[in-house]
Amino acid sequence: MSGGSGFDSATLISAGYALTSEELAQSDVIAAPDVAEYALRLGDDALILAQNMIWWVSRAPELEEDIALGNIALDLLGHARVLLTFAGSAWDKTEDDLAYFREEEEFRCLHLVQFPGRDFGETIARQLIYSHFAFELYTRLLHSQDETLAAIAGKTVKELDYHVDHAEQWTLRLGRGTEESNRRLQAALEYFWPYVDELFEDDELIDKLEGIAVRPSELRDVVLERITAAIEASGLRIPDSKQAVTGGRRGEHREHLGPLLAEMQVLARKHPGVTW
Amino acid sequence: MSGGSGFDSATLISAGYALTSEELAQSDVIAAPDVAEYALRLGDDALILAQNMIWWVSRAPELEEDIALGNIALDLLGHARVLLTFAGSAWDKTEDDLAYFREEEEFRCLHLVQFPGRDFGETIARQLIYSHFAFELYTRLLHSQDETLAAIAGKTVKELDYHVDHAEQWTLRLGRGTEESNRRLQAALEYFWPYVDELFEDDELIDKLEGIAVRPSELRDVVLERITAAIEASGLRIPDSKQAVTGGRRGEHREHLGPLLAEMQVLARKHPGVTW
Repeated sequence: MSGGSGFDSATLISAGYALTSEELAQSDVIAAPDVAEYALRLGDDALILAQNMIWWVSRAPELEEDIALGNIALDLLGHARVLLTFAGSAWDKTEDDLAYFREEEEFRCLHLVQFPGRDFGETIARQLIYSHFAFELYTRLLHSQDETLAAIAGKTVKELDYHVDHAEQWTLRLGRGTEESNRRLQAALEYFWPYVDELFEDDELIDKLEGIAVRPSELRDVVLERITAAIEASGLRIPDSKQAVTGGRRGEHREHLGPLLAEMQVLARKHPGVTW
Repeated sequence: MSGGSGFDSATLISAGYALTSEELAQSDVIAAPDVAEYALRLGDDALILAQNMIWWVSRAPELEEDIALGNIALDLLGHARVLLTFAGSAWDKTEDDLAYFREEEEFRCLHLVQFPGRDFGETIARQLIYSHFAFELYTRLLHSQDETLAAIAGKTVKELDYHVDHAEQWTLRLGRGTEESNRRLQAALEYFWPYVDELFEDDELIDKLEGIAVRPSELRDVVLERITAAIEASGLRIPDSKQAVTGGRRGEHREHLGPLLAEMQVLARKHPGVTW
C-alpha cells in the first residue's frame, strides 16, 4: 500500500524539516479519509491535553516551572494544529473548523487527556503516562508510509523527548521528595491508571491503516516498561487498578470534555467567521 | 554615578548575550537596594501581566492565536524571572521567594497589568498600551549605567518588539474588521485608558536612579504618539477618559490583584520549601 498523501514539494519532506500547519494548509496535500480519521485522533489527544495543561501554567509551584509547563502545552498545541490541518484537508475544513465547530461526540481523544489534572502531582502523573506513550508512538510514525504523517512525526518526536525528560525528572523529585509529595504522586497515578488500557486498544481503523498508522497494542510492552522503570526508581508503585470503560476513539467521552469544549469554543462560536 | 551592579564575567555582558535568571542567580551580582526596588517594579509588571495573559491562552479565537498569546505570556514570565532574580540579590531572596511569598502591598506593579482582561479585545487593547510602553522603556534601559539592567534589557527588547507587532496587527484587524469588533476594541481602550497616566509617573526612586533607571515621564510623548498612530490607523479613537488614582508603585492596588495572587501563590505557600 502506498502513502495516502504526498507532498507537492520535495523540500517539505526533507529530513529534519519542521513542517508547520501554515505550510501544510497552503500545500496541495490531501489526506485520504482513513488517514484523516487517524490524524484527528492524534490531533485531538494533543489539543485536549494542551487545554488542560494551560490551566496549570500560572499555578505551578515555581516560576521556572510555569515556563516549562507553558512550553509543553504550546508544543502540544503545535502538534494539534498540524495534525488537525492535515485531517481537515480530507473534508475541506481548517484546523479552527475542527477545533471550534465540532460537537463533543465528534472528538476522538483518549479519556486520559480529558481530566483537568486537579493538582500538580496529577499533572505530572499524566505527563509521565502520556509522554512515554506519545514518544513511542511518534517514533514509529517516523516510518509511516504516509509521507505527511512521517514528516509531522519528525518534529513532534523531538519535542516529546523533552516532555518525557521533564515528566521523569518531576516523578523522581516528587517520588523521592517528602512523604507528602510521594503520597500525592502515588494517588495521582492511581487516579489515572484506569485509563491506561485505552492507549493500547486496536480497532478497525487501525486494521485498515497497516503500514501507515502505528498499532496501539504494539506499544503496550515498551511503554509500560518505561513507565514502570520511572515509577520504581522514584519509590512509587504501579497501581493495581481495574481498567475503566473505554470509548474516546469512538466519541464516547468522560464528563470533563463537555465543559472544556464549551470554554474553548465559546469565543469562536459567538463570532463565526469574524476575527475574534 | 557608576552602575549599581557589575558582572563577574565578561561573557555574560557581551553584546547580544541573552542573560538567563539561572545564570544571574549563580553569578555574584548583587543589586544595590534602589536598583533592586526598580527591578522589582519592572519584574512585577511582567509577572502580573503574564498571569493575566495565561488565562487567555486557551480561550483565543484561533489555534494559532493560542500559541501567539502563549508565547507572549511566556516571554513576559521570562522577563519577570530575570528581573526578580536580580532584585532578590539585594535581599538574599530568590525569584520564587519574591513571586510567591510577598503580600499584596509588597507588589510594585502598574494598575494596568492587574485587570484580568475580560475578553479578547481587552487583552489586545492592553497589549497595545503595555507593549509600546515597555518597548520604549527597555530600549532606553539598554543604555543604563547598571550593567545588569542593560544586559536584561538586551534580551527583553527583542521580544517586546514582537509583542508590539502582534498588538498592532490585531488592533488593525479588529478595528477594521466588523462593526462589532471595532466597537468592542474601542470599549476596551476606554476601559484601560484611565490607567495610562500611571505609566509615566516619576517619583523619588526614579530621582535617585538618574542614569540607571528610565524616567517614566520622558516616555510619555513617544509612547502616546505610537499608540495614537496605531489606533487612528485602525479606525478607532483615543479615549478622552478621566485618569484614575495611581498607586501601584507604592503598593496600593486594584481589587483584582488580591485574587490573582491568591491563586498564583497557593501551591507554593501550601508546601513551603517543598518541591511542589
